Amino acid sequence: MELNIALLPGDGIGPEVVGQAVKVVDAVAEKFGHKINWTSALTGAAAIDAVGDPYPDATHEVCMAADAILFGAIGHPRYDNDPKAPVRPEQGLLKMRKKLGLFANVRPTFTFPSLIDNSPLKRERIEGTDLIILRELTGGIYFGERGRKDNGDTAFDTCTYTREEVQRLAKLGFEMAMNRRKKLCCVDKANVLESSRLWRETVQDMEKDFPEVAVSYEFVDAVAMRLVQWPSSYDVIITENLFGDILTDEASVISGSMGLMPSASIGLHTSLFEPIHGSYPQAAGKDIANPLATVLSAAMLFEDAFGLKEEAGIIRSVVNKSLAEGVVTEDLAGTNKAYKTSEVGDWLAAQIG
Amino acid sequence: MELNIALLPGDGIGPEVVGQAVKVVDAVAEKFGHKINWTSALTGAAAIDAVGDPYPDATHEVCMAADAILFGAIGHPRYDNDPKAPVRPEQGLLKMRKKLGLFANVRPTFTFPSLIDNSPLKRERIEGTDLIILRELTGGIYFGERGRKDNGDTAFDTCTYTREEVQRLAKLGFEMAMNRRKKLCCVDKANVLESSRLWRETVQDMEKDFPEVAVSYEFVDAVAMRLVQWPSSYDVIITENLFGDILTDEASVISGSMGLMPSASIGLHTSLFEPIHGSYPQAAGKDIANPLATVLSAAMLFEDAFGLKEEAGIIRSVVNKSLAEGVVTEDLAGTNKAYKTSEVGDWLAAQIG
Ligand SMILES: CC(C)[C@H](C(=O)O)[C@@H](O)C(=O)O
Ligand SMILES: CC(C)[C@H](C(=O)O)[C@@H](O)C(=O)O
Repeated sequence: MELNIALLPGDGIGPEVVGQAVKVVDAVAEKFGHKINWTSALTGAAAIDAVGDPYPDATHEVCMAADAILFGAIGHPRYDNDPKAPVRPEQGLLKMRKKLGLFANVRPTFTFPSLIDNSPLKRERIEGTDLIILRELTGGIYFGERGRKDNGDTAFDTCTYTREEVQRLAKLGFEMAMNRRKKLCCVDKANVLESSRLWRETVQDMEKDFPEVAVSYEFVDAVAMRLVQWPSSYDVIITENLFGDILTDEASVISGSMGLMPSASIGLHTSLFEPIHGSYPQAAGKDIANPLATVLSAAMLFEDAFGLKEEAGIIRSVVNKSLAEGVVTEDLAGTNKAYKTSEVGDWLAAQIG
Repeated sequence: MELNIALLPGDGIGPEVVGQAVKVVDAVAEKFGHKINWTSALTGAAAIDAVGDPYPDATHEVCMAADAILFGAIGHPRYDNDPKAPVRPEQGLLKMRKKLGLFANVRPTFTFPSLIDNSPLKRERIEGTDLIILRELTGGIYFGERGRKDNGDTAFDTCTYTREEVQRLAKLGFEMAMNRRKKLCCVDKANVLESSRLWRETVQDMEKDFPEVAVSYEFVDAVAMRLVQWPSSYDVIITENLFGDILTDEASVISGSMGLMPSASIGLHTSLFEPIHGSYPQAAGKDIANPLATVLSAAMLFEDAFGLKEEAGIIRSVVNKSLAEGVVTEDLAGTNKAYKTSEVGDWLAAQIG
């Protein structure tokens, strides 16, 4: 098979971790006889420096022409604590999501038995946790009208949703639940927000099309509690953009394996795969960042963008092997030898070959 | 001193837990020679049943005439999962907050050494946790314009903040920090929301008036993570209404003592004190609900509404004694004898007397 993949390394440790995923993908392609056409493009602070735009048109064209996108991370300390900076790397992220129609962010949270004791939560609370949060990514308060009034003394943001946007996201949620434990939880704040009431009534209307799926409706504040108390009680969670932003990050710390969590963003034109961690500027260029989340994102890429399950399975199994044998970066090495980012990538690629 | 206190028992277990707090307050008043004038009024489902309004005008008058309000909980299963019910108990809550100008919800999170192992988090993560979340309670998306368009197929909610609203809340936060560990964290989503940028710039402008306070600015998604990872790193957190709703509930489960957490809502005209737990309808009328959160809310009432620190201290010390001696309801009794709600109240009052 010929796979056209856009490569967006981004900022900070992005280029290093993406580099290891490329080695792994190339090894898998070699083994299975696929041909990968990689095309790189600039995003984030790197793109602001080069052309003054965190998501340049040239990058958009590369993405539109690709079957899938492998993304690192963006963000630079130069832009932190400066909410008024005229151009910020995150704007590139939002523009990319909108222009590529990446409407669904898929965030799995699962545990690795060997890492479970890294979690801030007690083992008995998280064992068996295997949930997916499906976050709506191109609507809501992220993209509504906003501005100032009264000489700047009043600020407003608008959260808007259409029934179609909710249906599109919810349909994916129902389908995922059908392939899993058949439980769907719709998270909203329907006791206060009109947009949440639209979410709830739309999902309620769809229940009849998926009679096997057990659907529950929970308020976002209650879910923020239960995710810490009993994460293993959830299967698939669907929610709007801002609630999803908060809950996916909260969920990411419960597994004890945050540095390993991959994600996918499903789009109208193409899909994007990226680790959930940030650009971690302090570690950039030091060859110490953990590449496993990006490598696992590449596994999702094979499976979700191309339906290549066996290829995805091999990547997951070599990652498990690296954990079992301690071929890991310093964040996971404990008192054992820590491997360099590039060494982990080389080792994984060699294991596949 | 003569203290005029409005009593709003509310729904579910509300009347039972409030009943115990009344016993404790009366015992304290007797001991210190205060005179308490209690005036009861209806709220929530109970008020809907009686007069069709969850926060009737008569109740509002009682509250306005009081120096402080002791509140139980509201909510009834009859209204759950029915986002379209024309009158809902929660509307009473919102109306009450707005009409009384209860602009700041004060939610402490602390640990009780004897209960720390109830937490889903590991002991070493939570030991020493002692934080306060100050949630703005009468603005933001809870009270902005909302509605439908396109024949009901589009829904919107508006989040609005004025500089004055932010200043009022932040001032309280700075003052609290000055009386504590002098750390203030402003939580927002300034990388996306205009209202958050107003929050951030307003708090930045206020820093010079409180030079001793170390101020940090964090995004709400990052805080949702760090509250689980390192709750003890926070002192005072200030944030807007919806973020506060989510983060206060998340924070409440980390201490392992959620059933014991009190809260205060500071207002323009009066202040309200209530346990953070809900109306827990399944337990209503069974004399099994844990009254300690309401009793500790009464301690906050003495201290925050009347400046009576010694009275507050006595209540806290008898609560600690009830925990140490196992005079607790079934939720905390483990394999030991469980006391009834009313027995715990009687015991606490007797200890004070
Ligand atoms: C950087 C920021 C705009 C972004 C978001 O809020 O969506 C990030 O937090 C994320 O979750 O990808
Ligand atoms: C019942 C609901 C409207 C309320 C809120 O969201 O403010 C509750 O969750 C709370 O935190 O007091």
